[in-house]
Amino acid sequence: MTKLRVWAPNAAQVALEIHNQRLPMHAEPKGWWSISTHLAVPGTDYAFVLDDRKSLPDPRSPWQPHGVHGPSRIVDHDSFAWSDGQWNPPPLSSAVVYELHVGTFTQSGTFEAAIERLQHLKDLGVTHVELMPVAEFSGDRGWGYDGVDIYAPHHAYGGPEGLKRLVDACHARGLAVILDVVYNHFGPAGNYLAQFGPYQTSHYQTPWGDALNFDGPGSDEVRRFLCDNAVMWLRDYHFDALRLDAIHAIVDTSAIHFLEQLAVEVAALEGRLGRHLALIAESNLNDPRIVRSIQAGGYGIDAQWSDDFHHALHAWLTGEQSGYYEDFGSLAQLAKALCNAFVYDGGYSRYRNRRHGRPLGGLGAHRFLGYLQTHDQIGNRASGERSSMLMNVNYLKIGAALVMTAPFIPMLFEGEEWGASTPFLYFSGHPDPELGQAVSEGRKREFASFGWKPDEIPDPQASETFVRSKLDWSEIGREPHTELLQWHRGLIRLRKRTPELADGRFDGIHVTFDEQARWLTMSRGPLIVMVNFAQQQQTLPLTGAENYKLLLASHPDIAIDGPSPRMPGESVAVVRTL
Amino acid sequence: MTKLRVWAPNAAQVALEIHNQRLPMHAEPKGWWSISTHLAVPGTDYAFVLDDRKSLPDPRSPWQPHGVHGPSRIVDHDSFAWSDGQWNPPPLSSAVVYELHVGTFTQSGTFEAAIERLQHLKDLGVTHVELMPVAEFSGDRGWGYDGVDIYAPHHAYGGPEGLKRLVDACHARGLAVILDVVYNHFGPAGNYLAQFGPYQTSHYQTPWGDALNFDGPGSDEVRRFLCDNAVMWLRDYHFDALRLDAIHAIVDTSAIHFLEQLAVEVAALEGRLGRHLALIAESNLNDPRIVRSIQAGGYGIDAQWSDDFHHALHAWLTGEQSGYYEDFGSLAQLAKALCNAFVYDGGYSRYRNRRHGRPLGGLGAHRFLGYLQTHDQIGNRASGERSSMLMNVNYLKIGAALVMTAPFIPMLFEGEEWGASTPFLYFSGHPDPELGQAVSEGRKREFASFGWKPDEIPDPQASETFVRSKLDWSEIGREPHTELLQWHRGLIRLRKRTPELADGRFDGIHVTFDEQARWLTMSRGPLIVMVNFAQQQQTLPLTGAENYKLLLASHPDIAIDGPSPRMPGESVAVVRTL
Repeated sequence: MTKLRVWAPNAAQVALEIHNQRLPMHAEPKGWWSISTHLAVPGTDYAFVLDDRKSLPDPRSPWQPHGVHGPSRIVDHDSFAWSDGQWNPPPLSSAVVYELHVGTFTQSGTFEAAIERLQHLKDLGVTHVELMPVAEFSGDRGWGYDGVDIYAPHHAYGGPEGLKRLVDACHARGLAVILDVVYNHFGPAGNYLAQFGPYQTSHYQTPWGDALNFDGPGSDEVRRFLCDNAVMWLRDYHFDALRLDAIHAIVDTSAIHFLEQLAVEVAALEGRLGRHLALIAESNLNDPRIVRSIQAGGYGIDAQWSDDFHHALHAWLTGEQSGYYEDFGSLAQLAKALCNAFVYDGGYSRYRNRRHGRPLGGLGAHRFLGYLQTHDQIGNRASGERSSMLMNVNYLKIGAALVMTAPFIPMLFEGEEWGASTPFLYFSGHPDPELGQAVSEGRKREFASFGWKPDEIPDPQASETFVRSKLDWSEIGREPHTELLQWHRGLIRLRKRTPELADGRFDGIHVTFDEQARWLTMSRGPLIVMVNFAQQQQTLPLTGAENYKLLLASHPDIAIDGPSPRMPGESVAVVRTL
Repeated sequence: MTKLRVWAPNAAQVALEIHNQRLPMHAEPKGWWSISTHLAVPGTDYAFVLDDRKSLPDPRSPWQPHGVHGPSRIVDHDSFAWSDGQWNPPPLSSAVVYELHVGTFTQSGTFEAAIERLQHLKDLGVTHVELMPVAEFSGDRGWGYDGVDIYAPHHAYGGPEGLKRLVDACHARGLAVILDVVYNHFGPAGNYLAQFGPYQTSHYQTPWGDALNFDGPGSDEVRRFLCDNAVMWLRDYHFDALRLDAIHAIVDTSAIHFLEQLAVEVAALEGRLGRHLALIAESNLNDPRIVRSIQAGGYGIDAQWSDDFHHALHAWLTGEQSGYYEDFGSLAQLAKALCNAFVYDGGYSRYRNRRHGRPLGGLGAHRFLGYLQTHDQIGNRASGERSSMLMNVNYLKIGAALVMTAPFIPMLFEGEEWGASTPFLYFSGHPDPELGQAVSEGRKREFASFGWKPDEIPDPQASETFVRSKLDWSEIGREPHTELLQWHRGLIRLRKRTPELADGRFDGIHVTFDEQARWLTMSRGPLIVMVNFAQQQQTLPLTGAENYKLLLASHPDIAIDGPSPRMPGESVAVVRTL
């Protein structure tokens, strides 16, 4: 007999719909309703009925086997046979993160199928697998950021059982698992939450409509809804960390910011579980408060994505200047990102048309993830081009080397390690034709302003758009993919056996560069990373010790035989001073 | 020849209208326009014309002699003959603040007329005079929170010259002057700012409509507009401090919060002027971050109003439980407020239907202003009743004693010192009949929900409503006003000659109370404040020393002759242990 509960503070009566019966639920304090019935056993479908209206899925539904509009299904989280009893993840400070999208990571696009590729990640040197959002969203395919049943692993991926098997399989191979969760908006289809309670507010607007209600009347329960969700993933699915999507769209003026509450509750859970847990934010605020300790007035989030480093690196390597890249493009900015994380730490941003950010104030580099690509930077392009479609192999190697030798926690996006030639397009599969059309046309409109013609934009709703985005694992055996994969493996090996690379210290970094000659050196203790971005060979000025040991070189002609190494065009090397 | 400048980033052309001429202005970087002309001399009226449309007042107009819709007038701030060259205000920590509304403080309701009453404030023991907002708002009368020309002292009060004379006269008498400024919204009439630039945003809503744009595109200049305004009042009008209205309606997700920027700029100005400056916030956030130092992760505001203390005191003394008073009413809450400022420091608030606030975390009591009344608490009642209409003289004396012996910076509202019998109603004088009607009806609607009938609500637009709110100074000569005035003078004298009362320390306070028997004692070092709220005589348990000296007593029968003083019904005394 299971007790089912739901928060519906505005309802006059609530019923449980189960086995074609409607059973009245009992009012509890603070707008909660509950019922205990022997009908409610694991595997049973159910729904809630507010004031005799249409039946609705449970806001905390653990499983939506028939999609966002169908009934919820009871799950017994205690019945799974976990094999990871001794598990504890490696620390974030030593992590190599790998972001993947379950639907495109493999041909069949399920949790189960992903398990077959874990050995590849292990061989690559990955320590943390990050899953793009898996919570139930409308349709059978999508990026996942339009989730509405945030407690339910998506039915098309394999539901709760499949997800647990994937996490367990990761742990069995020594891989930690991070889940991407969206606490800033709900998707456009299947969002019945407003009928249950004040989950959203019109006081603040996000790019996706009304903001979530973090500080208005009833917000305690909204915050509970989200904090309990975080706890659920970490406790019941054994996730090691959560990646918090777009926290800049969380508007909360309360004295205890939602992120701080979440950090406090996850820290308490860590103590109860005896396992290390972590929170990683996606933030475009350039605000050190996000990752500063609570004791020092921060929100206590462990780390955040570092878009400034990405943008500086991408804009410099590609020369792109449109959209948010208009704020970037100089080698000086890349150097600043390597030494300070934030390029914009108070200065004027043209893209934002305002000053942006503030200095770190002593934060370490392990508070930031560094990357050449993410799902966003690829998929938000009209044609979903990866870096491998925007730069040559030499530059891909340089980009990878800078990510893996930078002071940040490095992250790769699925397929990046072999320069996958498949795109990562924006795709969706809304069954509602009206919404589907709106999404397709919205996409065309969005890119029309950048000069794209409508028929040049892949239709997000077309199943082909999704299928084209799946990785082609057979590429690994062909050049230049094999070479790139080896290069990434070598870099990760180097990072792992070289303590200086993972010390997370900004104060140990020294960068010199020449914007016109297009070279850069970055020293980290006794290590020096030398990059010649120019097409022609150059002699780079190294000062200090006279003898160097070559640890890694992207080109066979790199010659280290004195204080001025000769670097062929478009090459990178890592040396150790002796 | 004066250079006139205006920010109008979206205009294709801007002209200066002066002496019936339209002179084209020159485009400067970042959306600014300027012109230098010999026509622009002090005293000249002018306006700006954007893209050949209707002429508009200057957003930074220093004077609107003809109201919010008329032309602006050039003011030379250097020409006033200040007499306060040696002036430096007393510190906030030793302050006794007196809030007044220029229009109702005297019969004629001008800056000039207020000067005649300064000696009364001096005799009372006031150190800081706080003016309710004086910036130009629509019409000839109003509270001032609907200002639109925030650089222009209101024409009905006497304009720039009159305000300078008032501040100078205060300084001549040793009185510091605080100005109430509104940086959270603009008034409904005469707000032309949207035509000039993105001063407001629809992303966030306040109770008064679109929020000001603190973090969107173009927000740098909006923040400059407000920071420059603060600097202007402090520098050109010699104000000693600013009171920042309703900062909880400032929504700013940038890494450097507007309040922090303002605090930094005011601190820099303090250095340049060589005079002490201060910022005081009205905040209902119960968030210590507002008044915590920037070094400790706060915003660096000097002090904030303490509504929890007010609400606890008011609800206990009156027994009122409607509106926000539903969250208050116990003696325990008053005791908590005295020791912690925030009654709600993380607990559930019924009125807000959510948890509210967080603990102070070590802040001192000088970060808070304490009061029995403010313009808001009086004027937001349907009938504008002061405490003197809600409680008897005994309770007024008790309330005043608790304000003046509490650890906070004490504040009085005009007339409170003699228990003025005039109300302080909500009044306005919008010349636009449509807006006037909307305001009148909105007021009736607002109070209908509390059970008031429309004809019981004084019409805010009626001039009589304003006139009735003016102080009647002749009351001072009559009882019980004379007695109350003497009581307030005595309390302030006691506070000033007793260092323990103004030490701002929470850690030195010890409060005991009996909710049923209705008594409370508060010890602050060697001082003890004893209050018998009950109607009957009581013996209060004092422990510690055996001998006491009576410093102040509200009743002649208070007897201090041993460890258990006898307190007549509804009485208060302050004693010193010997």
